[in-house]
Amino acid sequence: MSKAIGIMDSGVGGLTVAKEVSHQLPNETIYYLGDTARCPYGPRPVEEVRQYTWEMAEFLYRQDIKMLIIACNTATAVALEEIKTAFDIPVIGVISPGARSAIKYTKNDTIGILGTVGTIKSKAYEDALKDLRPTTVTYPLACPKFVPLVESGEYNSSMAKKIVAETLYSLKQTNIDTLILGCTHYPLLQPLIEQYLGSGVKVISSGDETAREVSAILAYRDELNSRHEKMKNKYYTTGSPVIFGQVAREWMNDQHMTIQQIKLP
Amino acid sequence: MSKAIGIMDSGVGGLTVAKEVSHQLPNETIYYLGDTARCPYGPRPVEEVRQYTWEMAEFLYRQDIKMLIIACNTATAVALEEIKTAFDIPVIGVISPGARSAIKYTKNDTIGILGTVGTIKSKAYEDALKDLRPTTVTYPLACPKFVPLVESGEYNSSMAKKIVAETLYSLKQTNIDTLILGCTHYPLLQPLIEQYLGSGVKVISSGDETAREVSAILAYRDELNSRHEKMKNKYYTTGSPVIFGQVAREWMNDQHMTIQQIKLP
Repeated sequence: MSKAIGIMDSGVGGLTVAKEVSHQLPNETIYYLGDTARCPYGPRPVEEVRQYTWEMAEFLYRQDIKMLIIACNTATAVALEEIKTAFDIPVIGVISPGARSAIKYTKNDTIGILGTVGTIKSKAYEDALKDLRPTTVTYPLACPKFVPLVESGEYNSSMAKKIVAETLYSLKQTNIDTLILGCTHYPLLQPLIEQYLGSGVKVISSGDETAREVSAILAYRDELNSRHEKMKNKYYTTGSPVIFGQVAREWMNDQHMTIQQIKLP
Repeated sequence: MSKAIGIMDSGVGGLTVAKEVSHQLPNETIYYLGDTARCPYGPRPVEEVRQYTWEMAEFLYRQDIKMLIIACNTATAVALEEIKTAFDIPVIGVISPGARSAIKYTKNDTIGILGTVGTIKSKAYEDALKDLRPTTVTYPLACPKFVPLVESGEYNSSMAKKIVAETLYSLKQTNIDTLILGCTHYPLLQPLIEQYLGSGVKVISSGDETAREVSAILAYRDELNSRHEKMKNKYYTTGSPVIFGQVAREWMNDQHMTIQQIKLP
């Protein structure tokens, strides 16, 4: 079934999901939308996030996709259930896959969660974890400085290293053995996070886990592309194609991608 | 949705999938059927495997399950597609999840596959891998001595160590960086296999990966149990409950399981 998979995020963070989908499903076509002009979603009021998320979802749906991934934790927490109910294609978010994977890895049932202010406030990960295993102890932590760092392309800098250390200091004092990167921007900071927390903490990228579930669900629905059905990926942004392209080309390892600027709604 | 997940295998091997389902989805109930009396399936003619697989599937289907896992590579290769088409519940096998995971891990596109004679002969893994990534180089290897070793409970013995080394000698001379345990019995030998091949080879258990997909598909269908819906697991075997119980109690870490002997068809 040669339709594309739609992936949407408040900015470039969802590219971590796109990259993993590309890697695990090289025959698939991706249409990516980053709402960079209105990024970050994390600190915004719920109603605003809901409206923006619907606008992105409807844009991608009109591109005739076969599946939609809400590759943004904030948007997933607010609008996944309602979009899933409204659309006639599978719609998946990033929270449940991340929670499921954390439960798989933890040995001491003590899990840290990093997210935006919105995601942490929603308690979406805590609910998902406790639904799966009621005894789980969680340490949620909002990291408002991380998204701007990634969106600006600064995720390798010495400033990034300093911000990671300052932000995670309190978490390092706990006995977590597993940490969920509950924001699709954070995998770009993953090397710094792992370095700071040390090898005793298994760091889980919700994005990677989501890609895994995309593969499972498309296979289950018999909707995976066969090897000659891949089309050219398309990238859309509501913001500057230059800044978007800077991160996207490096991250997706594709120097020839074309990026189209669009207006929402 | 408080129905059970049915898991079936030619013997005890599928318990590796059951264990992983229990771990990842502790709220779920498992009905397990091991056709121990007719194990192993690997060396049997295709028509016989097809008939036995259908008999197992129909037995579990009559227990009012919500999903069926064919936790046997040989049976998956022969009968997954037709059972999937015939049943009105999701039916998943172990081959695609294992192949998808191997593609995720390999860096040099060179993947080893261990399986029964039947599985290796079917080329099911090679087809699945090459569908995903046509350039993949595969080294398939039939290991007819492994299943009897596991079914007899001898998987920790010094004889097991010797058999693993002898069997995998030729594979050790290749440059594989990823190895699929293409039989649900083999994870019980995984420590010995990893020890023999060394840390340069990532060993993938199809069973673990299958459990992951079960979780994704049930979540997608909104059919995961809530926390109070767990019922008691049931274990069925066509063979001796004593021998089955010996491996099952240790492996599932459940000293109080009840095992019922049944007759197929």
